[in-house]
Amino acid sequence: MGYTLAQLAEKVQGKVKGDPNLQLSGLGTLEKAASHELSFLASPKYQSQLYDTSAGAVLVKSDEIAELVNNAIIVANPYLAFAKLSHLFAPATQGWSGIDSTCVVSKTATVAEDVVLGPNVVLDDDVVIERGCVIGAGCVISRGSKVGASSTIYPNVTIYHDVTIGANAIIHSGAVIGADGFGFAPKKDGWEKISQIGRVIIGDDVEVGASTTIDRGALDDTTIGNGVKIDNQVQIAHNVVIGDNSAIAGCTVVAGSTKIGSFCTISGGVCIAGHLTVVDKVHITGMSMITHSLLEAGSYSSGIAMEPTSKWRRTVARIRRIDDMAKQFAQLKQQVNKLLEKVDNK
Amino acid sequence: MGYTLAQLAEKVQGKVKGDPNLQLSGLGTLEKAASHELSFLASPKYQSQLYDTSAGAVLVKSDEIAELVNNAIIVANPYLAFAKLSHLFAPATQGWSGIDSTCVVSKTATVAEDVVLGPNVVLDDDVVIERGCVIGAGCVISRGSKVGASSTIYPNVTIYHDVTIGANAIIHSGAVIGADGFGFAPKKDGWEKISQIGRVIIGDDVEVGASTTIDRGALDDTTIGNGVKIDNQVQIAHNVVIGDNSAIAGCTVVAGSTKIGSFCTISGGVCIAGHLTVVDKVHITGMSMITHSLLEAGSYSSGIAMEPTSKWRRTVARIRRIDDMAKQFAQLKQQVNKLLEKVDNK
Amino acid sequence: MGYTLAQLAEKVQGKVKGDPNLQLSGLGTLEKAASHELSFLASPKYQSQLYDTSAGAVLVKSDEIAELVNNAIIVANPYLAFAKLSHLFAPATQGWSGIDSTCVVSKTATVAEDVVLGPNVVLDDDVVIERGCVIGAGCVISRGSKVGASSTIYPNVTIYHDVTIGANAIIHSGAVIGADGFGFAPKKDGWEKISQIGRVIIGDDVEVGASTTIDRGALDDTTIGNGVKIDNQVQIAHNVVIGDNSAIAGCTVVAGSTKIGSFCTISGGVCIAGHLTVVDKVHITGMSMITHSLLEAGSYSSGIAMEPTSKWRRTVARIRRIDDMAKQFAQLKQQVNKLLEKVDNK
Repeated sequence: MGYTLAQLAEKVQGKVKGDPNLQLSGLGTLEKAASHELSFLASPKYQSQLYDTSAGAVLVKSDEIAELVNNAIIVANPYLAFAKLSHLFAPATQGWSGIDSTCVVSKTATVAEDVVLGPNVVLDDDVVIERGCVIGAGCVISRGSKVGASSTIYPNVTIYHDVTIGANAIIHSGAVIGADGFGFAPKKDGWEKISQIGRVIIGDDVEVGASTTIDRGALDDTTIGNGVKIDNQVQIAHNVVIGDNSAIAGCTVVAGSTKIGSFCTISGGVCIAGHLTVVDKVHITGMSMITHSLLEAGSYSSGIAMEPTSKWRRTVARIRRIDDMAKQFAQLKQQVNKLLEKVDNK
Repeated sequence: MGYTLAQLAEKVQGKVKGDPNLQLSGLGTLEKAASHELSFLASPKYQSQLYDTSAGAVLVKSDEIAELVNNAIIVANPYLAFAKLSHLFAPATQGWSGIDSTCVVSKTATVAEDVVLGPNVVLDDDVVIERGCVIGAGCVISRGSKVGASSTIYPNVTIYHDVTIGANAIIHSGAVIGADGFGFAPKKDGWEKISQIGRVIIGDDVEVGASTTIDRGALDDTTIGNGVKIDNQVQIAHNVVIGDNSAIAGCTVVAGSTKIGSFCTISGGVCIAGHLTVVDKVHITGMSMITHSLLEAGSYSSGIAMEPTSKWRRTVARIRRIDDMAKQFAQLKQQVNKLLEKVDNK
Repeated sequence: MGYTLAQLAEKVQGKVKGDPNLQLSGLGTLEKAASHELSFLASPKYQSQLYDTSAGAVLVKSDEIAELVNNAIIVANPYLAFAKLSHLFAPATQGWSGIDSTCVVSKTATVAEDVVLGPNVVLDDDVVIERGCVIGAGCVISRGSKVGASSTIYPNVTIYHDVTIGANAIIHSGAVIGADGFGFAPKKDGWEKISQIGRVIIGDDVEVGASTTIDRGALDDTTIGNGVKIDNQVQIAHNVVIGDNSAIAGCTVVAGSTKIGSFCTISGGVCIAGHLTVVDKVHITGMSMITHSLLEAGSYSSGIAMEPTSKWRRTVARIRRIDDMAKQFAQLKQQVNKLLEKVDNK
């Protein structure tokens, strides 16, 4: 169940320092790793932890740093190497194989030979599950939807009709993909629902977090690019388009018809209003409120961090009167200017 | 699978311009509609798109505008007409009929004859499902709850005990209705749970979005009026009352015992504190923080939209010192006033 | 189905005022309770409601207050006593008993004798369910996870592999415990997933709200202390540690590796950034943005509550120019100081 230091080094094209035959059977942080575990130094600022670590070996950036420990793997990017090796040590997530007898699979669904369907999986008409997929217990995949090869869908995910998910997807439990967008026309006595006729199209290598919701388009499709990573409890409204490799952290909301570029990184708790454009390589800090398009790459923020409540109350009281203060300030400036004139003329 | 222009016009009491026999088999935006699709012009500001559209026909407001295209339906409210016609073109969402053999239905549950229960639906004791309902796969409806006629509940919805849902409801996947409100009495060594004994009562024509949670009341009931539309991932706490036809967008939180009036429109990401009153016809803009009752109709806002991070940091630093600035400003005003006196007296 | 006033008084070590044989079969607020119901006066500010209440009896703090009603139970802490008595009046939530025939239970799972497993419950390999647990319909508990004695898990909860939940837990529907944390290493063409190898460890007496997500640790474990109460739609990221008896209200987000102390109370809609430390007995008001550690007990806030939209727009416009205003203000002070010198020298 373990690997030698040499075997692990080879997997990340790294160089061994120390004992190539050292057996390693797990991963750990520098702080907590045991002697049978591999650790990593991602940033020089944690270098002092190398002196105290009990890790059997450490992924490091240079020969020089490797000198500080007995056993190391030297690679250009230790954090990336750690990420790649992490897959070797991931435990089994579930114990089912084949198609469980409790599944309900439509006669018109197509399921590749090696697919695992956990208990109570429901596949509706015309669903396609490609080779290598693992669909967790209780998942419901509705009419005409398709899951690309080697995707993992954890238990109790719901996928509505006419949704397309690319290869190598990871969809976490509680996610809902393809529910109706929030579209209504006002009428005299309330709201007329607008049937949401568009679809959801998700690219390859996408991860969708637990309880995240991605609504189907109203007429056009909601589209998630390749390599997009979405955290838990994110809400993606109808007709949103997200470019390749963008990452969105937990509890962020993207309102309807907004287009987000590629390689954006959006922190948690952000609200992005509808019908906006966010270009490539935009970074948004946590809990920001985005009400205008972001047409240049760069970092954007809003929000004011906490203070002790009593101090904050005073601050807020002042802010609420800032318009008055600004007006009085303008008046004062005029008075001072007049004074200056007077005094200078005297 | 299609309709003639005349047939569609009749359904919305509209007037045909052009070829009444034109076959239309879908809907599309002005930008993307094809020649077999119907589109609509909701607002005069998009009128220029009429020149370029490939839509087979367009819903418009006046004869004058209809002149700009070959085929049109003229109606007073094109957007509402489009909403009504959208239902004709909505695809089938699921392929099940009748009561699936995998359902677990209590002997004391009452299920109307034409109801569809998808695979693995669970109905507990004394549940009532009225005629015309479609309950999706994996839904669990607990003891004593009732779903009104012609309601659609998408897969994997959970309804707790003693919940009443009116007719024509649409409940999206992952929604949880009737979970315990967050009620605890503090005690020396922690918290004593307060059993949540109230119910959830939902009116007719209500839509509840994916992964939205509506908690049961502590003693009284949580109540959602007729025609209320709730988007995804909204949290409605215990004892909240929402008036008829109010609409609440994604990820908004309404804390306990707050009363919201009728015909309110609450944008996404809003937090409304507990024990407040919001009167009818209040509009709240996105991500607002509501800590006081809103006792007059109108629009309310809070929050400051983003700026580039570096500029925002300067702004925040100033805001944190606004109390000091205000004090210094008051001092300066006094000095200037004294100066004015002095100078005038000289 | 009811209790006498004397019986109820005994259960909370209270003193009876009035008729000890009065039959009470329910609970209600002072405003709405009927003559067969028990109510409570939690705070002196509602004392005037005693004159109008139709409640059969009331839990009160003193003999003096008890004089205002016919029947009362006098206890030191009426609200806590009400909480304790509330459990007597909670209705049955579900009607299943034993292990439903539709459950899928691995041969290697261990289920105590008196456990209730609702329909379609799925227990994977090596799962342990201790005595007295009730697991709702459609729950999926994955490989190697353990649920402590007397826990209630409502329908459609998903628990990933290697999760440990203590005794007396209440987990509400839609909750997802143990999904992957959001961890990726950037690479040239996107993101390399970091397998999330840690676990989730939850103490005793914990309540987890509907659709709340608690992610597993990356390498170390995500840890929730004893007596912690978490409301709906809360997101707890990987490696978070929460101390005993802290309470977190709806839709709050705690980002990765943050440590929260004991007896903290965190209101709803709060965002807490990653890698922070929050000490014991911190209170955070609703919708606050926490970007620094909180190293002293006390109350913390941020956010500015709503105003009418038109007034708010003016406020925001001023705030955006506050840096300019502050600079001009500094300039003006200099001018006034010079003036003061000049005038005084004249």
